Amino acid sequence: MIEISLVRHVKVEGPPALYGATNVMPNAEENARLLESLTAAQQHGGSYDLVITSPLKRCRIVAELFAKQNETPLCCIESLQEVNFGGFDGIPFDDATFSLKTQSGKKNWSMLENFWQAPAVATLPEAESLAEFNQRISTAWGELIESCYLQEIEGKRPKRVLLLAHGGVIRMILAQILQLEWQNPILHQSLQIGYGSLTKVTVTRPFEQLNQNHFQVNFIGLPLLNFSVFS
Amino acid sequence: MIEISLVRHVKVEGPPALYGATNVMPNAEENARLLESLTAAQQHGGSYDLVITSPLKRCRIVAELFAKQNETPLCCIESLQEVNFGGFDGIPFDDATFSLKTQSGKKNWSMLENFWQAPAVATLPEAESLAEFNQRISTAWGELIESCYLQEIEGKRPKRVLLLAHGGVIRMILAQILQLEWQNPILHQSLQIGYGSLTKVTVTRPFEQLNQNHFQVNFIGLPLLNFSVFS
Repeated sequence: MIEISLVRHVKVEGPPALYGATNVMPNAEENARLLESLTAAQQHGGSYDLVITSPLKRCRIVAELFAKQNETPLCCIESLQEVNFGGFDGIPFDDATFSLKTQSGKKNWSMLENFWQAPAVATLPEAESLAEFNQRISTAWGELIESCYLQEIEGKRPKRVLLLAHGGVIRMILAQILQLEWQNPILHQSLQIGYGSLTKVTVTRPFEQLNQNHFQVNFIGLPLLNFSVFS
Repeated sequence: MIEISLVRHVKVEGPPALYGATNVMPNAEENARLLESLTAAQQHGGSYDLVITSPLKRCRIVAELFAKQNETPLCCIESLQEVNFGGFDGIPFDDATFSLKTQSGKKNWSMLENFWQAPAVATLPEAESLAEFNQRISTAWGELIESCYLQEIEGKRPKRVLLLAHGGVIRMILAQILQLEWQNPILHQSLQIGYGSLTKVTVTRPFEQLNQNHFQVNFIGLPLLNFSVFS
């Protein structure tokens, strides 16, 4: 059995915008609290054998601090980074690009609204499509599980894995495990994966079905920063 | 805005069995701890205005204790009870009915296995079908939200609602909110709603769309009994 704790990064620094591939910094105070919570979670539930992180700073910084503090192997997986919002990625909403006084501003807001209402069909300019994103995350997740079972990461089979990632990435992993329709905008609009939250997944591979993984989603979006002590 | 905290009852007394409509008792020690956790949750997040419960003891006892302790109005909704497993409901798995030495025992295990693999098509004998259950919960949930907005329950509009219910019921409510395919066995097999866990949902009704509710699922299955202190 492998337990995977999927943790979303804390809130980020910078004006309101779509942050996908943009390498924005996490809030330092919240990141310090997240590190404390992860340490408490480890004391409560047992040591992590492996830390996996998205390459982006809002995940990687806390992952590196945790791994160093606990002497845990760290693995950075490029393909676990957030969806790329293309031309809109990291552009503040109060930028001239989104000014309602201009024709192009109105057009840009309208594109954003269409994307929000139907993310699977209304891809933003120069952005990764939702289908490409889903494919990338499905592949990365499958390879990650396979690598754990093949004991390929850092030379030993991990039993407890801490994975630092993004809201969109965690939602796509859940969609795959629970066979949810990832094209449905309601899933993306209504299933909140909060900043600094913990989602726990358990993977088993029965002896009689060595090519089939069984997943249990134990809980989704537990707000780590709102709890101080594990009982 | 209305915040609804969906809490599943604690583990129940009795030998391993399918407990649906059977009115089994909750474990007293865990129920006392759940009451403490709900009190802590209230101190942390603000008073509940209304407690709603399934009529079954494993939900109703703690709901009544909490409501009495906090002088909160209590409302029991019959149609929020768990799915009815019919002829198999409450029958211990080590009963003669499930003895593998008999033909009927083998047949009964096989029916259970078929139900587990395809709950939407393989209805157990004399049981409520998954479609009927889905319809009952969808209707009850819709009426509950409508009643809250119409300020019909106990004469005032509740802002924070505590709802004590069952694993199957909470999963069906989530399926409706997130437009998940309730027929899919994976949803029932893989999305765990633990004993004594808290799932939080927020409902808003925009002024311009008075006949449309917007839902946010804030988190799913937070294990209340594993946390001692809210920060």
